[in-house]
Amino acid sequence: MAKAAILMGSKSDFDVVKPAIRVLKEFGVETEVRVISAHRTPEEAHAFAAGARENGTEVIICAAGKAAHLGGVIAASTTLPVIGLPVKTDMMGGLDSLLSVVQMPSGIPVATVGVNGGENAGLLALQILGVKYPDIAEKFGAYKAAMREKINADDRALQEQL
Amino acid sequence: MAKAAILMGSKSDFDVVKPAIRVLKEFGVETEVRVISAHRTPEEAHAFAAGARENGTEVIICAAGKAAHLGGVIAASTTLPVIGLPVKTDMMGGLDSLLSVVQMPSGIPVATVGVNGGENAGLLALQILGVKYPDIAEKFGAYKAAMREKINADDRALQEQL
Amino acid sequence: MAKAAILMGSKSDFDVVKPAIRVLKEFGVETEVRVISAHRTPEEAHAFAAGARENGTEVIICAAGKAAHLGGVIAASTTLPVIGLPVKTDMMGGLDSLLSVVQMPSGIPVATVGVNGGENAGLLALQILGVKYPDIAEKFGAYKAAMREKINADDRALQEQL
Amino acid sequence: MAKAAILMGSKSDFDVVKPAIRVLKEFGVETEVRVISAHRTPEEAHAFAAGARENGTEVIICAAGKAAHLGGVIAASTTLPVIGLPVKTDMMGGLDSLLSVVQMPSGIPVATVGVNGGENAGLLALQILGVKYPDIAEKFGAYKAAMREKINADDRALQEQL
Amino acid sequence: MAKAAILMGSKSDFDVVKPAIRVLKEFGVETEVRVISAHRTPEEAHAFAAGARENGTEVIICAAGKAAHLGGVIAASTTLPVIGLPVKTDMMGGLDSLLSVVQMPSGIPVATVGVNGGENAGLLALQILGVKYPDIAEKFGAYKAAMREKINADDRALQEQL
Amino acid sequence: MAKAAILMGSKSDFDVVKPAIRVLKEFGVETEVRVISAHRTPEEAHAFAAGARENGTEVIICAAGKAAHLGGVIAASTTLPVIGLPVKTDMMGGLDSLLSVVQMPSGIPVATVGVNGGENAGLLALQILGVKYPDIAEKFGAYKAAMREKINADDRALQEQL
Amino acid sequence: MAKAAILMGSKSDFDVVKPAIRVLKEFGVETEVRVISAHRTPEEAHAFAAGARENGTEVIICAAGKAAHLGGVIAASTTLPVIGLPVKTDMMGGLDSLLSVVQMPSGIPVATVGVNGGENAGLLALQILGVKYPDIAEKFGAYKAAMREKINADDRALQEQL
Amino acid sequence: MAKAAILMGSKSDFDVVKPAIRVLKEFGVETEVRVISAHRTPEEAHAFAAGARENGTEVIICAAGKAAHLGGVIAASTTLPVIGLPVKTDMMGGLDSLLSVVQMPSGIPVATVGVNGGENAGLLALQILGVKYPDIAEKFGAYKAAMREKINADDRALQEQL
Repeated sequence: MAKAAILMGSKSDFDVVKPAIRVLKEFGVETEVRVISAHRTPEEAHAFAAGARENGTEVIICAAGKAAHLGGVIAASTTLPVIGLPVKTDMMGGLDSLLSVVQMPSGIPVATVGVNGGENAGLLALQILGVKYPDIAEKFGAYKAAMREKINADDRALQEQL
Repeated sequence: MAKAAILMGSKSDFDVVKPAIRVLKEFGVETEVRVISAHRTPEEAHAFAAGARENGTEVIICAAGKAAHLGGVIAASTTLPVIGLPVKTDMMGGLDSLLSVVQMPSGIPVATVGVNGGENAGLLALQILGVKYPDIAEKFGAYKAAMREKINADDRALQEQL
Repeated sequence: MAKAAILMGSKSDFDVVKPAIRVLKEFGVETEVRVISAHRTPEEAHAFAAGARENGTEVIICAAGKAAHLGGVIAASTTLPVIGLPVKTDMMGGLDSLLSVVQMPSGIPVATVGVNGGENAGLLALQILGVKYPDIAEKFGAYKAAMREKINADDRALQEQL
Repeated sequence: MAKAAILMGSKSDFDVVKPAIRVLKEFGVETEVRVISAHRTPEEAHAFAAGARENGTEVIICAAGKAAHLGGVIAASTTLPVIGLPVKTDMMGGLDSLLSVVQMPSGIPVATVGVNGGENAGLLALQILGVKYPDIAEKFGAYKAAMREKINADDRALQEQL
Repeated sequence: MAKAAILMGSKSDFDVVKPAIRVLKEFGVETEVRVISAHRTPEEAHAFAAGARENGTEVIICAAGKAAHLGGVIAASTTLPVIGLPVKTDMMGGLDSLLSVVQMPSGIPVATVGVNGGENAGLLALQILGVKYPDIAEKFGAYKAAMREKINADDRALQEQL
Repeated sequence: MAKAAILMGSKSDFDVVKPAIRVLKEFGVETEVRVISAHRTPEEAHAFAAGARENGTEVIICAAGKAAHLGGVIAASTTLPVIGLPVKTDMMGGLDSLLSVVQMPSGIPVATVGVNGGENAGLLALQILGVKYPDIAEKFGAYKAAMREKINADDRALQEQL
Repeated sequence: MAKAAILMGSKSDFDVVKPAIRVLKEFGVETEVRVISAHRTPEEAHAFAAGARENGTEVIICAAGKAAHLGGVIAASTTLPVIGLPVKTDMMGGLDSLLSVVQMPSGIPVATVGVNGGENAGLLALQILGVKYPDIAEKFGAYKAAMREKINADDRALQEQL
Repeated sequence: MAKAAILMGSKSDFDVVKPAIRVLKEFGVETEVRVISAHRTPEEAHAFAAGARENGTEVIICAAGKAAHLGGVIAASTTLPVIGLPVKTDMMGGLDSLLSVVQMPSGIPVATVGVNGGENAGLLALQILGVKYPDIAEKFGAYKAAMREKINADDRALQEQL
């Protein structure tokens, strides 16, 4: 069974990660969800990252805001792919979070999604797991087909409304 | 054998993707490199994306600049993970490219690395492939150990220099 | 009879395109309004663009937000003029949308109006149609005269109020 | 014969408008090129705009930098479509020019292309003229096909080089 | 008697100019307030600017938002000092207005105050008039002394409160 | 005789203020030029500002870069109009300087010109002095006429060249 | 006993400095709180800074918004460490305040914390005082341990909730 | 004897920290200089921070660029004051570095200086040490007096030159 972890730097980020939890569970992925702060619990962060591969985790989502170091700190101590989820702030809508997550120096990438892009963080984790688990990739294909059908239904509804 | 593809929107992006090609080849990943433009060759882009999974590709890197749509266009037509590599421009150092790549709407994520982050795009592809191929993950561990040793050597050299 | 199309990437963009629909209808232009997403319905987007000229469409307005690729994707597959209407977001008031729409690479222009500039998107379509249809240009002249009179009336009202 | 005008706010903008002149001439469009400044020659600007339609001009390109008002000033006094071409500056790569051109208030749109997008300004003018002149639209189709072939040739050359 | 004019591009800017009106009236300056739009009433704008000096106006405040050209357009047609008052927008808090007002090309300055800085626009007008009218300068000295006393009173109140 | 002062925060700003000195001297204005730093010579700054009106100065230009406080510090201690000239930096082309100069709190305006706008700082000083000295205003009219003629000459030269 | 001062440029900044007052008092630091404006009470600002060391103050926090010069003005006239606390504004979430505080020219540093970072301003003052007062450093260690325990408690609560 | 440490994330940052080393040595502070990367040598970073107080270090300067986490990572594991020195990048002149350093979440401040502000990082360390060591504070007073004299000399030289 595929296994993912979602870390958030503060419990106030929970609403942002919720859609990621939802899609991972919807796809049957075992999902660990943790509150771990790069700055307030650095040892827990390091311990989590260093042990993640051994305990079966295959991909890690890190949500954080402002000087959002959680993704980088976790990526520093694991070889697993790390997805960075920048949380919206008052500073230009989260440009501080985005730049802190995405502009990683050479050697330690963080796979960044858009600001407050919780669903996309979950879907990206699923695409990554889909490289190994064909059934997840297949389900993601169905998920995309449903999105397409949703847009088409919106389009048809609009035609009737106008 | 693991298989990746690297797409660039213009041959002028070649220098930016070079480090990605280098690390993928260094890790023994079969790597297809293509010039495909979301805007000037939309049909080739769609055809590539739609057929990528069938021809064995497991992860796709898309490099583009300015209104950089290549990653999004490819991600729209495949279930494979797509890595977006924003290319530096004159507009605030590539903020246009970065936002065009990373701010994807819900449903179609693009795993974005930093502006001109060619090496990181390649390494992220390797981390993603490492979920399926343990030897790639292991090699990436060695790669990280070498980076660590390089920093430590720089540190020792500095001590002698000062 | 002149014919325009208005595409939006999500039905949530409807309020932004409403003023464009209003002015086009007010000027007697046949106006098709569609929900088509560059990312969630790429084939519909391509099919629409590729067939637009043949079905008599003369100008296309594309409204989208965030990594707003709709205008670029449509422009890639038609020779018709494409007007890009960036939708406001939380990221610096829509700078992500604006840059994703306007910063197109050489060869595939998108005629961009301001963020949430629905009325201006419609008026620009009318100005473009006015190159071919003198009566639309004439009506636009009257529209401008009415705006002028509106400002002058506001000015007179202010004089009385002060 | 189709007729376009290109205005620049300063002769130092000439290099930016050159590609627009080139594509317009290549397509056989009669092209008037003028140095007219919104701020230093406001009367000439107004006179040009007010008389443009009468003298047969069908679309106007306005290139300017910094607080780039030329497009807006011209659009204020004509019903013709006005294309705004923001010129690169030292202020965030031309964000000042871009915002001054594109963020027009309701009622007076300026069809904006990317910063220093001279070729795109010319091509957009051709697309607009193509609404009326089918041969220009057809030529633009051929122009796009040539761009596509150029990308494909670059792609083939890359395959041989790697 | 000193004489100032305050122009706003839209009556919706009235709240922003109110503090300017207040301080000018408080200092006994004859103040004309007008709704004149650079884009919707370009001829009125030009006529106002061209005639301002003759009708006794000595300084002009121009409030406008977005691609805020009013200050530049007025400054183009008068030799009087023009104060630009950028109005707050949704685009990065009014950065579009600010850059459109302040980044004027060489030859035509606009004396810019901060975004929504209505009071400061009025006070700057008073400082400029104070170069000619010593009593205005003197009153401005008293105004500054009152501000100082206000801060000192706030400070004393805080000491008691803590 | 009219009298102006130009202050720069560092002698490295001299090239930026040169055009201001040039136009002020060209118009026959007595011009004091000083190196005074808000941060490194705060007492000199305060003393200059406090004594400026008494020694006959009528307008003050302050050039500074980065956290450019010179204009604000001088404005705090005088009732004379203060022109802020933000100096270009590596931080987004001088956005730090611009915001530090223009975004003054209510009560203490600084009349800001564009980044590195030395000529405009000088011309604005002349416009301000022109409120009191009709001959300066008249000369400024001639200066504007010469600029207009220069643009027109550039336009004519372009016609011949094309 | 350790002694700190907190200055705010306007009493409207009080809510932002409150957390700084709280942590300083919690750690038993004698804390002077003042309303002093760089622009409206420049002499009080200078007098405070010049006398701070003599009256026993050891570190100064300065909160201000917009063109936030208070930190720089105070730092100019004391050798004590000055902490700059930028206050949130409507201009890109306080980017104006941040740049005005942090981008100080060489020679006069201001130790800047994040926008509206009142608690961090207080904690930084405590860390600075902790260099001299071991008990403050020790208490800060306990404060950090409590934060860590808080995060861990949030994490445990989340596990139960999910 | 006072003791400081300077950490840089890459040896390529050496030129930026040089002025900090210079002023610290000039003031007789024992200064350890290290290459330690938050991402490539996370264990060394943690070990350094955790042991810094015990080995007598009293203040730590951390220089890093892009997603500059070094300051935050070090601050997470020590109670010493940490000075963040953002290094200039191609992304808006280092805005990515600046925001990654300064926008720390509540609880873990990093005392940030301007982009590439090496000298100011060193001087801030000296001001902090000066709280404990009166001779350093005194020397800093002399340093400021010398800066003042330098500006005054520049001013006198300018008077002669003009």
